[in-house]
Amino acid sequence: MTNPTITAICTPAGSGALGVIRVSGTDAIAVTQKIFSKNILNAKGYSVHFGNIFYKNEIIDEVLVTVFRAPRSFTKEDVVEISCHGSPYILERVLQLLLENGAELAQAGEFTQRAFLNGAMDLAQAEAVADLIASESEAAHKVAIRQLKGGFSNELKSLREQLLNFVSLIELELDFGEEDVEFADRTQLKTLVQEILHKIESLIASFRLGNAIKKGVPVAIVGRPNAGKSTLLNALLGEEKAIVSPIAGTTRDVIEDTISIQGILFRFMDTAGLRETNDFVEKIGVERAIEKMKEALIILYLCSGAEGEEVAEITENAIADETVEEGDLTAQKYQTAFPDSKVLLIANKCDLRSTPLNFTGKSELIPLSARENENIQSLRQRLYELVVENQSLSFENTIITNARHVEALRQTQKALLTVLQGIDSGLTGDLVSIDIRTALHYIGSITGEINTEEILGNIFGRFCIGK
Amino acid sequence: MTNPTITAICTPAGSGALGVIRVSGTDAIAVTQKIFSKNILNAKGYSVHFGNIFYKNEIIDEVLVTVFRAPRSFTKEDVVEISCHGSPYILERVLQLLLENGAELAQAGEFTQRAFLNGAMDLAQAEAVADLIASESEAAHKVAIRQLKGGFSNELKSLREQLLNFVSLIELELDFGEEDVEFADRTQLKTLVQEILHKIESLIASFRLGNAIKKGVPVAIVGRPNAGKSTLLNALLGEEKAIVSPIAGTTRDVIEDTISIQGILFRFMDTAGLRETNDFVEKIGVERAIEKMKEALIILYLCSGAEGEEVAEITENAIADETVEEGDLTAQKYQTAFPDSKVLLIANKCDLRSTPLNFTGKSELIPLSARENENIQSLRQRLYELVVENQSLSFENTIITNARHVEALRQTQKALLTVLQGIDSGLTGDLVSIDIRTALHYIGSITGEINTEEILGNIFGRFCIGK
Repeated sequence: MTNPTITAICTPAGSGALGVIRVSGTDAIAVTQKIFSKNILNAKGYSVHFGNIFYKNEIIDEVLVTVFRAPRSFTKEDVVEISCHGSPYILERVLQLLLENGAELAQAGEFTQRAFLNGAMDLAQAEAVADLIASESEAAHKVAIRQLKGGFSNELKSLREQLLNFVSLIELELDFGEEDVEFADRTQLKTLVQEILHKIESLIASFRLGNAIKKGVPVAIVGRPNAGKSTLLNALLGEEKAIVSPIAGTTRDVIEDTISIQGILFRFMDTAGLRETNDFVEKIGVERAIEKMKEALIILYLCSGAEGEEVAEITENAIADETVEEGDLTAQKYQTAFPDSKVLLIANKCDLRSTPLNFTGKSELIPLSARENENIQSLRQRLYELVVENQSLSFENTIITNARHVEALRQTQKALLTVLQGIDSGLTGDLVSIDIRTALHYIGSITGEINTEEILGNIFGRFCIGK
Repeated sequence: MTNPTITAICTPAGSGALGVIRVSGTDAIAVTQKIFSKNILNAKGYSVHFGNIFYKNEIIDEVLVTVFRAPRSFTKEDVVEISCHGSPYILERVLQLLLENGAELAQAGEFTQRAFLNGAMDLAQAEAVADLIASESEAAHKVAIRQLKGGFSNELKSLREQLLNFVSLIELELDFGEEDVEFADRTQLKTLVQEILHKIESLIASFRLGNAIKKGVPVAIVGRPNAGKSTLLNALLGEEKAIVSPIAGTTRDVIEDTISIQGILFRFMDTAGLRETNDFVEKIGVERAIEKMKEALIILYLCSGAEGEEVAEITENAIADETVEEGDLTAQKYQTAFPDSKVLLIANKCDLRSTPLNFTGKSELIPLSARENENIQSLRQRLYELVVENQSLSFENTIITNARHVEALRQTQKALLTVLQGIDSGLTGDLVSIDIRTALHYIGSITGEINTEEILGNIFGRFCIGK
């Protein structure tokens, strides 16, 4: 089998101490040999060679060349890695020389795609490579490395094998068409499908959190105008991200930023203050704030804990800070409206009171002062706990982080529900078999046992060049 | 000899397919072993190992570990290179694990400094490593790689050995104090010193160009207001770098940018139009323009080639475009004032004439239209030729690109001139010897045979981390 030889720079752009160029394919070693001073044509796999990259009589760089022999390499093809001095100029020169000598420029993700096509990993593992590179927090990294190591794939494989076993028994029945035998026990099949459905449901449910882990747990900061939402955002981030002013309605766009708290990435969304308004832009801002609440896993509802603000002044177009008691009612209302989110009631501005806060409401309350940076650490700690307490984040369970996987699982779920209905209504084996095959197809598409050019293009096109 | 083990990320910041961490020192292999799944304690030099980096039971990444054994490594110490997935999060985690297990964070340039201290390269070669990484053009790269390969060092070594030979003969005479012998032939010594002086002078002379190669050949674009200087800059760069307007005096700051023409980096400087002005800011701008002319190796003097502008209108505060003939006189004036630079006369706005330009002046003239991008390519070609024609850019000769080296050469020159005077005035051997020793000291300081903590700190502090 001959594969065109591909090459790309694998290290990030910019100057550094060193930069690496990867070459993979049938002629990887021969192409490199044309520009390298040491003889590597007979080099063993996993061997390193110090020498010069040259063009005619000119030395381009002193480099280390590592040779990998098929199939013991990332792509399972012959692979050469050239470690150069990290000058963009040099890397570009060496790359050009490789191209002139017969290599082709690798597409984004093409190395990993070859690793997949050559059986070094399945599709879910290949996708984990991209996730691993993009991982920005401990939690995202843990999920990606588990997926890379095949944890998720093994689970799917086991589900798939059990279903395959049943479907072949059912299909065997068809060969004995006239004899009315039943090799596949329908009650056992039903139990199995129900078990698999249960498993798939929990995988689908893990996606909301899995996605949150990958992109940051979404936390919406909401509340009346002037409650101090932007000040809280800045305090949490430790920088002046949002513009703060005493003018109600300062924030209109949704301002987002992420921080990692003890290894978990949080994505905070500062929103426009919730009030009736005639200001056109602010109105859109309020609508967006409500959108963000739907998206959020955690809602921070801010009200004033300042002394003497026990009574809210309500006018037609502007509502002053709420009292903590009123805030409690609002927070409870939001908790009912957004049952999948956790609403925390924040009593801000507690630097403006001398007596302790006497709170008798039902919501979980955190008193703090965003302006004076008081108790912000407790809020951070609580946010972390909220995510960790969440059962489905237990790292013992598999967590889905990929929208493609969820979609395939949903399709599998749909097919399996049809199987259940079919069994219940006494459908014939050949028809039940079709629905099981559909379910198998979708499970298989996750790990790539079933794949199309289009799926592959979509997946690997999102990789960075050089991987 | 025991060296503390140091470590750093060697690849540029950012996400990529892969990132490399280097570990160097007596315990490099032992420290890595603590976090690596494969046994590398007895691994041979130049061997590669595929395995996991782990922390307790958690896998941090699948990596390739390359082991180098002292003295066959970059630093001549035991060295380990860990090639990880290129996620900043992963690289940071692995680095932290190495630090927790006994490695220290490497200072900028510390790996190269060790290479120097352990005799893997001399100081001039070590400096070439930094130049190589920073090289942005073919010419800069060529000079750096020659220096890295020891071309410059060998030249200095030969000069130094000849002088050392003489000084030891002279110092031998001193042992025979009373006997009035002369082992060192004074005439031969004088000839040698003169030869060396000649060589050193040409090395010093190469610095102006060497520096230009490294930082870009400085080209000042000057001329009266509205001559089209900013338009020419933009045309040369191929982008809208400078703000262009029909208002005379638009440009006041000096605007600089570089482009590479056939492998040589040029640094273009667009300047304020040269005129008498009462505008305070513009006045400073004109002063700066004149400063830039002193700095430039090439001066492009712009005037108008437009039809009907044969007569310049001169008023007190504003001077309209010059005719080509007048421009010729100015260009000649500048050529006299800046004899080290080459002045090119540019007749801009040639799109605004229908008859051929009838030029009878003395300057080298290039007609073009910056606005219409006409003949810009000829100007680029001419700029390239001007540099290549310059004898001292012949790549057969050594070119000095480092200010520290020039300073040391100047000190050497000074000491050798004193030696010559001493010989001529019949100075005794012990005194001549002192001056030769001074010269030897300065030559030696270039390659690091003579060095101080301070010099080393200065040199290696400028490196990037990880090199």
